[in-house]
Amino acid sequence: MKVLVIGASGTIGQAVVRHLSQRHEVIEAGRSAALSVDMRDIASVRALFGRIGQVDHVIVAAGEVAFGPLGELRPEDFATGLGSKLMGQIHVAQVAQQHLRDGGSITLTSGILSDMPIRGGAVATTVNQALHGYVLAAAIELPRGLRINVVNPTVLEESLPTYGPFFLGVEAAPGARVALAYSRSVEGAQTGQIFKVW
Amino acid sequence: MKVLVIGASGTIGQAVVRHLSQRHEVIEAGRSAALSVDMRDIASVRALFGRIGQVDHVIVAAGEVAFGPLGELRPEDFATGLGSKLMGQIHVAQVAQQHLRDGGSITLTSGILSDMPIRGGAVATTVNQALHGYVLAAAIELPRGLRINVVNPTVLEESLPTYGPFFLGVEAAPGARVALAYSRSVEGAQTGQIFKVW
Repeated sequence: MKVLVIGASGTIGQAVVRHLSQRHEVIEAGRSAALSVDMRDIASVRALFGRIGQVDHVIVAAGEVAFGPLGELRPEDFATGLGSKLMGQIHVAQVAQQHLRDGGSITLTSGILSDMPIRGGAVATTVNQALHGYVLAAAIELPRGLRINVVNPTVLEESLPTYGPFFLGVEAAPGARVALAYSRSVEGAQTGQIFKVW
Repeated sequence: MKVLVIGASGTIGQAVVRHLSQRHEVIEAGRSAALSVDMRDIASVRALFGRIGQVDHVIVAAGEVAFGPLGELRPEDFATGLGSKLMGQIHVAQVAQQHLRDGGSITLTSGILSDMPIRGGAVATTVNQALHGYVLAAAIELPRGLRINVVNPTVLEESLPTYGPFFLGVEAAPGARVALAYSRSVEGAQTGQIFKVW
């Protein structure tokens, strides 16, 4: 199968590419990849699919959110997360519907802060739950046997040097374990699911 | 207590005003109210609080989302919901934190489509779950004993003439029953909760 991974050079993306490359033809894309895409801009997403043509599966492991104390969050901080991690992934899902082969799948990425809020993480929790909502709703309308799921990972062991202080008391998972959830989404038959890795 | 209700002239707002007026001084605001506010614009929200000064509780029962088949939803359709029902309510919650008396509360409004997706409702499901995320996260950071909850109502009996065809098989509730959930949020002691009325 042909699997497009957006965010392929990120910590999760690398683990997913490593895992799925064993069985599939993986196409790597991202903001600074050879196949470059800025998913905040739907025209850029359309251009990406225009270049690569039909694929069987799409995975997005990309998107930013701003962090900061609740009382100091400005509309711009929300706009970053809503424009990048939320609408960026939704742009990919909306455009992918036109370019996936019958029976294909879309897999998005949220994160543990959806259900386990931390200080400074209000934008992340908002965006992650929004992604769960989109996937729940999109799953019942997708045509041609297309499926959609979202992987909800804990903090990655590989990311602890950077993000560890925000996730005190949270059990981390190695990227290789998180990658299994993407495999279940792509290679399984479920749709409208949140695959938690925590 | 002084209770500000934004969206006071709406179907839910009217029921909430009727119920809480029995015990509180209710200040009615809305897009076409004498105390007018466009909550999509945080400056308009700031101006509203500047005019009315301190209050004890804030309720928002306002916000629009676009509906349409998944495959036809454009970025603008998502932007309407994210700008109005999501960020409009978040603007109020963010500004209210500076204007509520100690121990006050913020009550937002989502809706049953958060968990019960319907055809054409992907934006609504996305926005409603995002609101749940914001409330979950904000609750752990609010200072001065402030609380925040979200009421998640089913379709109102009073709205069935308009929205009934979208909610086939869904049990409606009268506005008076939905208003009780706002009372629990304002007059109870819980925070970070989703008060389902369905």
